[in-house]
Amino acid sequence: MRTISTCLSPQLLPLHSFEDKTVVVVDILRATSSMITAFAYDVASITPVPTLADCRMLKEQGYITAGERGGQKVSGFDLGNSPYEFMDHQLNGKDLAFTTTNGSQAILSVTDAHTIVLGSFLNLSATADFLLAQNGSVLILCAGWKGKFNIEDTLYAGALADLLQNEFAFEDDATLASQSLYQFAAPDLMGFLKKGSHPRRLAGFENHQDMEFCIQRDKFQLNAIFREGKLFRLEQTSII
Amino acid sequence: MRTISTCLSPQLLPLHSFEDKTVVVVDILRATSSMITAFAYDVASITPVPTLADCRMLKEQGYITAGERGGQKVSGFDLGNSPYEFMDHQLNGKDLAFTTTNGSQAILSVTDAHTIVLGSFLNLSATADFLLAQNGSVLILCAGWKGKFNIEDTLYAGALADLLQNEFAFEDDATLASQSLYQFAAPDLMGFLKKGSHPRRLAGFENHQDMEFCIQRDKFQLNAIFREGKLFRLEQTSII
Repeated sequence: MRTISTCLSPQLLPLHSFEDKTVVVVDILRATSSMITAFAYDVASITPVPTLADCRMLKEQGYITAGERGGQKVSGFDLGNSPYEFMDHQLNGKDLAFTTTNGSQAILSVTDAHTIVLGSFLNLSATADFLLAQNGSVLILCAGWKGKFNIEDTLYAGALADLLQNEFAFEDDATLASQSLYQFAAPDLMGFLKKGSHPRRLAGFENHQDMEFCIQRDKFQLNAIFREGKLFRLEQTSII
Repeated sequence: MRTISTCLSPQLLPLHSFEDKTVVVVDILRATSSMITAFAYDVASITPVPTLADCRMLKEQGYITAGERGGQKVSGFDLGNSPYEFMDHQLNGKDLAFTTTNGSQAILSVTDAHTIVLGSFLNLSATADFLLAQNGSVLILCAGWKGKFNIEDTLYAGALADLLQNEFAFEDDATLASQSLYQFAAPDLMGFLKKGSHPRRLAGFENHQDMEFCIQRDKFQLNAIFREGKLFRLEQTSII
């Protein structure tokens, strides 16, 4: 039987094997949610890069720069890391260079996986459908917060595991714990998230609005796949 | 306000500060449960050591050797790692040398903490009372399984956080998640644990019996503290 396992922080990645697996990288607040939104608005590609300097270099080649440091938009960048900034039809066909504290680094930390896709609540069912149609096992990589466990990425891991449980065996305790946590929190996901550390990490109205947006399920029917250093849309966009 | 934080695996320890904190090290299955049981049967001290060779060296100095590798008793050792092996009044006044895959290593991985105590369901309330009577903040260190997250240590972290929540603020998402997981699982802790990976890690009847024993709450009213390389009983033993 195919298996599903969960890596609760990039710091624990050396303990996981991901050869021949599909890795789902998730950073709910906000990198992967914003990237999926950008693909829903028809960007051509997103290149995740580790440093601000990498981003600025790509700007000289015509890329749109996006990202954050400490949750704030970077001086001189075209866009920050709020999904609302990517709801712009002027981004149609553009190439983005993207750098964030956690999500971009998590994507770049995976090597040797068979396939890497992005996870978010916004395209949860599309990702589950994609994984069910594949042959291989799955590893969910939570981007976490500066290497630490965080609640929102773990809740996503649990929601995805919940959708896959009939076809995949849970390989580790982290997957069981994530699913249980999701079942516990699902009746009031927003209320539960507010008890977490995120409201303290990134305070303010904009962030609250972003949280509300990022926990919506299945707003978009698409997947994003990472190939040779860039993310591309895998299926037809459909903004519901 | 004092805080409580949770380190879900020794691999994440470099991300935590524990200066001036009391660190509670927990390895429910089975190291810290067995150690607390040993103190309930009046051992004089327990010296956790990293290697089999360290243990054998202390045996020459009159220590009783105990521990496991891969869940199995070590050839030539006096005792394994089942709590039932420590329910022996002949251990009264003896010094133990103890080495296990996860628990002993976790205890030894903590440096610079103000105080280190052992955690187990068997002495849960005694530990909570001790922490409430202290001035400082608390870090719960889950021993995990070969560096990975495990369910039983996390459930203990949640149960302890539940008892401390009125006097301590939760510092991180890991503590919130652990408490939620405990609340989710508490109505049938044994049933929940059976869904985890532990039954696969250590199979067999003896292990099932050990699990039943190790999830009992408040069987013993004592604490064990780590000082200058050795664990000692902190309060009066009382076997209920």
